[in-house]
Amino acid sequence: MENVIRLAHGAGGKMMNDLIREVLAPPLDNDLLRQMADATVVQPGTWNLEPQTSNLRLAISTDSFTVRPLFFPGGDIGSLAVHGTVNDVSMAGARPLWLTAAFILEEGLEMETLERVVRSMAEAARRAGVLIVAGDTKVVERGHGDGIYINTTGIGVVMEGVEVGPDRARPGDVVLLSGTVGDHGIAVLSQREGLTFETELVSDSAPLNGLVEALLEAAPHTHCLRDPTRGGVAAALNELAGTSGVGIEIDESAIPIRPAVAAACEMLGFDPLTVANEGKLVAIVPPEEAEAALEAMRAHPLGQDAARIGTVTEEHPGLVLARTSIGGRRIVDMPLGELLPRIC
Amino acid sequence: MENVIRLAHGAGGKMMNDLIREVLAPPLDNDLLRQMADATVVQPGTWNLEPQTSNLRLAISTDSFTVRPLFFPGGDIGSLAVHGTVNDVSMAGARPLWLTAAFILEEGLEMETLERVVRSMAEAARRAGVLIVAGDTKVVERGHGDGIYINTTGIGVVMEGVEVGPDRARPGDVVLLSGTVGDHGIAVLSQREGLTFETELVSDSAPLNGLVEALLEAAPHTHCLRDPTRGGVAAALNELAGTSGVGIEIDESAIPIRPAVAAACEMLGFDPLTVANEGKLVAIVPPEEAEAALEAMRAHPLGQDAARIGTVTEEHPGLVLARTSIGGRRIVDMPLGELLPRIC
Repeated sequence: MENVIRLAHGAGGKMMNDLIREVLAPPLDNDLLRQMADATVVQPGTWNLEPQTSNLRLAISTDSFTVRPLFFPGGDIGSLAVHGTVNDVSMAGARPLWLTAAFILEEGLEMETLERVVRSMAEAARRAGVLIVAGDTKVVERGHGDGIYINTTGIGVVMEGVEVGPDRARPGDVVLLSGTVGDHGIAVLSQREGLTFETELVSDSAPLNGLVEALLEAAPHTHCLRDPTRGGVAAALNELAGTSGVGIEIDESAIPIRPAVAAACEMLGFDPLTVANEGKLVAIVPPEEAEAALEAMRAHPLGQDAARIGTVTEEHPGLVLARTSIGGRRIVDMPLGELLPRIC
Repeated sequence: MENVIRLAHGAGGKMMNDLIREVLAPPLDNDLLRQMADATVVQPGTWNLEPQTSNLRLAISTDSFTVRPLFFPGGDIGSLAVHGTVNDVSMAGARPLWLTAAFILEEGLEMETLERVVRSMAEAARRAGVLIVAGDTKVVERGHGDGIYINTTGIGVVMEGVEVGPDRARPGDVVLLSGTVGDHGIAVLSQREGLTFETELVSDSAPLNGLVEALLEAAPHTHCLRDPTRGGVAAALNELAGTSGVGIEIDESAIPIRPAVAAACEMLGFDPLTVANEGKLVAIVPPEEAEAALEAMRAHPLGQDAARIGTVTEEHPGLVLARTSIGGRRIVDMPLGELLPRIC
């Protein structure tokens, strides 16, 4: 472990995982935290809390948003802060209900900018069908923030009968991806760096709760759900393979990607599998429900480009392999984490 | 409303309230957010969520911590981040169960500092009997943070039969305060500014859930609970008077205060009623339960200096008046908010 924090410690890759596993998690350790999922499932009923308790399962997730710039094609920090947490809660097979919103504002921020961001949050919350139920406001001196940082924490109710978790992938399962990869990361990066491409690149930032409900109705025995944000599909699949103790094999040519994003990645030297998404999900489903799951996703506006991208294997547990377009196989590594700081 | 954000917008006083009421709350408006309490009470059962639901009431609160310096006499940002949210959840008459923890780290932060803060969080969580169940880590570039910012969001279960809320104070009710005022604010300020006093000033940062349980057992019809953090007792009482549409009259000489804090406030020109506390609560209870409430608090280690400080009146609704030691009366204003930035 390094002795100072570096940007890569927040980039969603191996360095961040090491920081969490070696520094942050051990002192705080408990059974619930150890779930290491996008959202943690808790049961008020297990707490011996008198007759008012029930078998209700809640999903809880927290995320701070530090994206730079605040506004980018297809979204802004406000809508992103709603979508990001709505999506994490949804990945537990839960219906997100309530969000909290906590702002760290930098002295000197234009009031108009704040107003615009809050309106965007409100619109995103309405669209996702969640309520923002509590808030907090802090202000830090000029040069100790960057305009606006937002934390959202989300609470949802796990749907009855649904059992998803990052440790539930089984050999033979099918790996599905709900749409094109890399749109968010490339859109934010190009805005930040002032890159212009022939086609405008737009973030995919969107609330996935509706898509998840449709998917789980069609494939109620879905094993894993993950939204490939920081670290992209590569990080999501590596985490699922590692936590479930299985191998994953994907077909590179099956990964949906917009030509403009592919071109930008090639120009910038990025592997699109490691670029962040904010409106996509990876689902691992038993083979007998794969077709129904895929159809349900494709019938939803946010899953039109959904594809079957691979399978879960007994071989090479913990490892993600890709069959390349020229017929070889390569290891899809967990990104180290130097790629794109402050993408969400 | 000003057209840029100023430090005072985060200081817990009138300017922050105006920002919340004019800019942040209107676009996000809903019945739950409108509770404007330390924690919001939600009921999964009201959501028409099939048989798994119940009459469970959850209390949710969020707070970002940006205190400067990170370590101060009696605490640090880690323990404060646990206590602050445990206390806010407790103020809904709830037993806090779960906390999330989201870190915004500044590039270059010493790993050792982070480790120390996380150990302190873990210790504080154990002491308070809550679990940290989910987390998040972001890293921002040097000069865009200040070492560590922490958001904690807490979820608790409202105790059966308990009905507390900022709108429930009634004329004739008794106002209780659980102990001395101003310890936290003065301790942090003196550490930050390098002030030295003959007596060491120590923050009162502590988890109040145990004290609240003892209080509610003795006085189950307690009407209001509030922890007087930013803006101090003055802000807490003004908010309760305003929300309940009642007057509050306090006896200045009944307010417990350490001599060293009183001396420091006098020297620095602060009204101790406006200085932040992190281990104190204000309770408004019906007169017939006041004595039992006071005894229960005094029997608890965190309530030994509890005092009856005033009463709720029908006159001057929305206004807090103090009888001064020389027999006059003064208005205890909502602080404007210029006082002590980044106190929590």
